[in-house]
Amino acid sequence: MIATKGYAAMNAGEQLTEWNFERRAVGPNDVQFDIQYCGVCHSDLHQIRNDWFPGIFPMVPGHEIVGRVIAVGENVSKFKLGDLVGTGCMVDSCGDCSSCKHGEEQYCENGSVSTYNGLNKYTDGMPTYGGYSKTIVVKEDFVLNVPENLPLSGVAPLLCAGITTYSPLRHWKVGKGHKLAVLGLGGLGHMAVKFGVAFGAEVTVLSTSENKREDAMKLGAHQFVVTKDEAQFNAVKDSFDFILDTVSAPHDIAAYMGLLKTNGVHICVGVPSEPSVIPAFALIGNRKSLAGSMIGGIEETQEMLDFCGENNIVSEVEVIDMAYIDKAYERMEKNDVKYRFVIDMATL
Amino acid sequence: MIATKGYAAMNAGEQLTEWNFERRAVGPNDVQFDIQYCGVCHSDLHQIRNDWFPGIFPMVPGHEIVGRVIAVGENVSKFKLGDLVGTGCMVDSCGDCSSCKHGEEQYCENGSVSTYNGLNKYTDGMPTYGGYSKTIVVKEDFVLNVPENLPLSGVAPLLCAGITTYSPLRHWKVGKGHKLAVLGLGGLGHMAVKFGVAFGAEVTVLSTSENKREDAMKLGAHQFVVTKDEAQFNAVKDSFDFILDTVSAPHDIAAYMGLLKTNGVHICVGVPSEPSVIPAFALIGNRKSLAGSMIGGIEETQEMLDFCGENNIVSEVEVIDMAYIDKAYERMEKNDVKYRFVIDMATL
Repeated sequence: MIATKGYAAMNAGEQLTEWNFERRAVGPNDVQFDIQYCGVCHSDLHQIRNDWFPGIFPMVPGHEIVGRVIAVGENVSKFKLGDLVGTGCMVDSCGDCSSCKHGEEQYCENGSVSTYNGLNKYTDGMPTYGGYSKTIVVKEDFVLNVPENLPLSGVAPLLCAGITTYSPLRHWKVGKGHKLAVLGLGGLGHMAVKFGVAFGAEVTVLSTSENKREDAMKLGAHQFVVTKDEAQFNAVKDSFDFILDTVSAPHDIAAYMGLLKTNGVHICVGVPSEPSVIPAFALIGNRKSLAGSMIGGIEETQEMLDFCGENNIVSEVEVIDMAYIDKAYERMEKNDVKYRFVIDMATL
Repeated sequence: MIATKGYAAMNAGEQLTEWNFERRAVGPNDVQFDIQYCGVCHSDLHQIRNDWFPGIFPMVPGHEIVGRVIAVGENVSKFKLGDLVGTGCMVDSCGDCSSCKHGEEQYCENGSVSTYNGLNKYTDGMPTYGGYSKTIVVKEDFVLNVPENLPLSGVAPLLCAGITTYSPLRHWKVGKGHKLAVLGLGGLGHMAVKFGVAFGAEVTVLSTSENKREDAMKLGAHQFVVTKDEAQFNAVKDSFDFILDTVSAPHDIAAYMGLLKTNGVHICVGVPSEPSVIPAFALIGNRKSLAGSMIGGIEETQEMLDFCGENNIVSEVEVIDMAYIDKAYERMEKNDVKYRFVIDMATL
């Protein structure tokens, strides 16, 4: 076993504290890397608070993890000491089901293993601990190559916020000739704008707040609509091919679907705690679809990282010390972050 | 003007009575045909009762209309006297918008004109009256050729129930290698089974009632699942590529979506009066979509009729006299019809 330390919630809803724990020894197919940066995702807070389901405590959050390889198992062929690598939301999957065989481990029919707050059900059955820590041991197949040319703190959020927006845009082939609306301009939304623009779509940011207009345009958006302004809202009715909905707070999806053209698709990547209420006419009237998408497979995540390397795309981040985490959560809840907190693990 | 008679609801919610009224004179681009059969759609009852929106009264329902041409305007080139023809849910559209130009008049951005309970907004502005009548005058572009080889009473419902199920199955390219579930076995559902089977899909009927098993199999279904039986329901979880949902009564769509595989699509063609409640995880967990579809365009409706002619597909019907209509509505509300009432217009 490998002794390490991290920041953990010892019980549901508690503030995080420093915690000494052990990682498994590096197995034949494992890669160990020292963590340099770890992004702070809203889902970290949801899970600490048991918002979605009862969690496993102590819980070390963090699934936007980057650093350098310090050990590899004897069967490892893709990585060597010193490589810059990352791990996202998954550290294992069954490998046998149709989804896994199609490189979509996120939809593993037997359940993928979460990077934290999960159990290594395909191996030793032990709990998984995330990236708010000094080092991590991950199965080679779930380790990604990180391009060397990007500012590393901005790479960390690509492993969750990045792939969560990249994957649906690729799946639905969003690009030239498409009008894409991005709903919400936070950690996910700002990445959706960058990718949408990079793919050639005409990108409109839909936001409740006029304050975000300048930032949206700086990120490359072509248009900005304050959704609370009835005139602005009505002016974009029936106009979008796709809405990428990054909002986790309850919101009226059916109303936003009125902004879609015939055959338009509203894609949810945020997870509001309240279900949506959808009248049949919102779908039937113009053959619209309401869809969802969750992160991306390992192969696609690597493709996304390579794309970011080639196109100089990173997340906009505010780098924080480990000890700032509870304050960061407070600010995150007020949307007071542009656009992602990333922990500098040298401060742990 | 052309004097004719029909059955009309004189006011919202009233029983139908015989009513003498006038059709417009046959214009240069019009086709007049004498109506032999008219199908009875659940939406007839919804509209008489103002369930969806305030209707135009007197209202002559009926949008599954077949008969023979008795007059054509001077510019009409596609039809001649004696031709067997039909008209479905639409009698006009703007003709200029992107949807119309793509042959999808049902999604006309300026609004298609309903066969009844509509206004001829692109021409004389007068109300439209449907197929519960002796004769009808329709713009050539909205008249369909009906194959001569099919039993005509069974053709009438193809104009609504047929195209409503044919169109989404074609749009989503449902066919060989796909597992298709048909939810509900009524007027729409039984056509969905026939088309699904004809397209090569493996078709499962999902029904609340064991009573429908034998009929489902006779229609060609490969499997039948009583959804109220928990064991049967659970046995088909994560198993379908598509669910074609023909149910108009309120039902738990999110629960049915649990029967879809990753990337599965739940397609609504029924219009429940209550909106659906959809938790985000029902969509996101396996990149599922909830979609809707409404009838089909004129070109596709013709394609469907030709396909039916070639493959001997018609609707299963119970032919009734015009005077039986109110009793037919009563029975339709109790799902006591296999599978569509069709009025023999010789009885009016």
